[in-house]
Amino acid sequence: MSVIVQKFGGTSVADMDRIRSVADRVESAVKDGHKVTVVVSAMAGVTNQLVEWVREAANGNIDAGHDCEYDCEYDSVVSTGEQVTSGLLACVLQGRGIKARSWLGWQLPVHTEGLHSRARITAIETEKLVSGLDACEVQVVAGFQGIDDDGRIATLGRGGSDITAVALAAALGADRCDIFTDVDGVYTTDPRIVPKARKLDKITYEEMLEMASLGAKVLHTRSVELAMKHNVCLQVLSSFSDAPGTLVVDEEDMLEQELVSGITYSRDEAKVTLVQVPDRPGVAASIFGPLADAEVNVDMIVQNVSEDGNATDLTFTVAQGDIDAAIAVLESKKDDLGYGALVPDPNVVKISVIGVGMRSHAGVAQKMFQIMAEKGINIQVISTSEIKISILVAEEYTELAVRSLHTAYNLDQD
Amino acid sequence: MSVIVQKFGGTSVADMDRIRSVADRVESAVKDGHKVTVVVSAMAGVTNQLVEWVREAANGNIDAGHDCEYDCEYDSVVSTGEQVTSGLLACVLQGRGIKARSWLGWQLPVHTEGLHSRARITAIETEKLVSGLDACEVQVVAGFQGIDDDGRIATLGRGGSDITAVALAAALGADRCDIFTDVDGVYTTDPRIVPKARKLDKITYEEMLEMASLGAKVLHTRSVELAMKHNVCLQVLSSFSDAPGTLVVDEEDMLEQELVSGITYSRDEAKVTLVQVPDRPGVAASIFGPLADAEVNVDMIVQNVSEDGNATDLTFTVAQGDIDAAIAVLESKKDDLGYGALVPDPNVVKISVIGVGMRSHAGVAQKMFQIMAEKGINIQVISTSEIKISILVAEEYTELAVRSLHTAYNLDQD
Repeated sequence: MSVIVQKFGGTSVADMDRIRSVADRVESAVKDGHKVTVVVSAMAGVTNQLVEWVREAANGNIDAGHDCEYDCEYDSVVSTGEQVTSGLLACVLQGRGIKARSWLGWQLPVHTEGLHSRARITAIETEKLVSGLDACEVQVVAGFQGIDDDGRIATLGRGGSDITAVALAAALGADRCDIFTDVDGVYTTDPRIVPKARKLDKITYEEMLEMASLGAKVLHTRSVELAMKHNVCLQVLSSFSDAPGTLVVDEEDMLEQELVSGITYSRDEAKVTLVQVPDRPGVAASIFGPLADAEVNVDMIVQNVSEDGNATDLTFTVAQGDIDAAIAVLESKKDDLGYGALVPDPNVVKISVIGVGMRSHAGVAQKMFQIMAEKGINIQVISTSEIKISILVAEEYTELAVRSLHTAYNLDQD
Repeated sequence: MSVIVQKFGGTSVADMDRIRSVADRVESAVKDGHKVTVVVSAMAGVTNQLVEWVREAANGNIDAGHDCEYDCEYDSVVSTGEQVTSGLLACVLQGRGIKARSWLGWQLPVHTEGLHSRARITAIETEKLVSGLDACEVQVVAGFQGIDDDGRIATLGRGGSDITAVALAAALGADRCDIFTDVDGVYTTDPRIVPKARKLDKITYEEMLEMASLGAKVLHTRSVELAMKHNVCLQVLSSFSDAPGTLVVDEEDMLEQELVSGITYSRDEAKVTLVQVPDRPGVAASIFGPLADAEVNVDMIVQNVSEDGNATDLTFTVAQGDIDAAIAVLESKKDDLGYGALVPDPNVVKISVIGVGMRSHAGVAQKMFQIMAEKGINIQVISTSEIKISILVAEEYTELAVRSLHTAYNLDQD
């Protein structure tokens, strides 16, 4: 009798018909003899409406964030979406003669700390869930929410219900955590761009983590990190089909390792080049310190060796939404930094090749550079880690670059 | 520095504009130096939508009630409406630089017992509210909800937010409890029927209780009972105008007592006559016992003395929604009861004259009977208490009877 956690996202519980379909899946897991804990998101669109109301009530001040009072009220309001769907699903299950009950974050409780609206789970008390599971009762948990030390509701931010599901699976020692969503698994790349993209049967945590960070939207980075840390066997699958999904597992559980597992792209990038930066010790710190203070996350960084030893060009990338803040910070420091010019460029895309196999195989990067050269695509910035290579190119080459790489690494479906 | 409780109903918080208007009133009370606790209902329409979802999820089984599991989920889902408005109002107040925070039923907590979806408040812990009020922070409490001994959310049923407000006013020893609604006070009768109806400046608890029971919709009976029991000074007033409202107070606080304070009518009545009922001891018990078992509430009862000592006619009234159940019960017992015939009549209206002054004045009832006689209206059943006289007449006379009585008791506006 295995313990499983099933998580259903917003499109999977978008209305009563879909909630009944969710109940079908839960029912079939119960009939298969599993002890089932279900985590639900809010109905699709509901969270946006609630956020919009809070934004209006707070005169738009919720993005600025960090105002504790607004944030506490934000969490109290926005967490109601999951409260509604958890109660409704429990009712539907009861109506079929399946023992079930809902749990809110504060009822278990799910303890959190840190900033409201993007809190972290510190612990989950599972006693009540375990005794419910032992009594063959389905435990329906409202995702995305917990309670802080002051007894106020805290929400977990983007991907929050996935995090709830993975944290519960870890706390319960579940045999599997199934993430039901609106796609049927993890693909070698975005099927909208590459029709020959293949669904992966298995992928390692490390690869999934890179995929999530680098633009694949199917799982949020935080939930993958959590699953990796606690060795939770994750499965991503569709709530709208019966096809098997993608298992996210430890590297040891992979029978044979592909060289490259996937190609991702992210258009949410902007490039900034500082021309003629004085080439002296401490200059990088004096540039990136103020950016960090302004909460601008810098991603790729390239600094060339200067020819004359006096001045160099420095290029970095930030998220598109941060470009104005980055420019403002750097212009206000122009005199201190002493650079010649600031050249922003929002028309770039980051393309990444990911695979744990490249650790033990040379030539993966070389093939990427060669394909780009053949297609006449200029590489602006390169950044590598153990299991991925990312390049920045002009945005207009997105489709061409992704399709060419997908074919070159033998990822195309037959 | 007085402590006041302000309660705003669903139409008063129906959208963001109205919530801002509510904030205006709260702000002005704060600027007047009051310590303010606010109780809010859900946005108008939201509770109905939530109830509809639960009804669908529970295959329509929520009216049958008494199924604990459905009821717990019902409460968890339906209580989210007040959770949303309490958070939004707190945000709006904070945006104006007024210290404010929201409280949910389980956070104070508001303790309840009894059936879910119609629970009773047993105690409210006020320590946290009091320390907030002492720090000049507005306390925004989600109405309609509490928590049971098992830690599950419980809702209070119809009029629930009024009950929360009055219970909080009692627990805090508040100087006043203002119930803001969509009418500007308690009227001598329904202004839609009698354009000359007058708004009352003051009314006693006893009268308000009769008015609420007998058809005036402005306050729910349970909240008036609670106010009377704890001597809470209630004020009913409009959130859409600045006119003073109606104070509901102890009889001692009335400077001069009107003979009659109001005329009410209720069309939600149905009459049942049992013809030729055997006139023997125990017959009333054998009729009304089975009705009580079937949860049919019987209101007015008339039994005539029989002429021959063998059989009599017995008439009683029930709510319109209970008439079919009442008929079914009595027909199933026809042989035991031995009555001749059962004659139902749904086309009746109960008209009541209410006033604590009638305790010390004879002739109030006599005037009612006389007016009915003058207008040619046949009185079918009469029922009296210390401070009201109710009669049952054919429904078609509703307007005529109410208007004639309103004039006869000098209630018409100048």
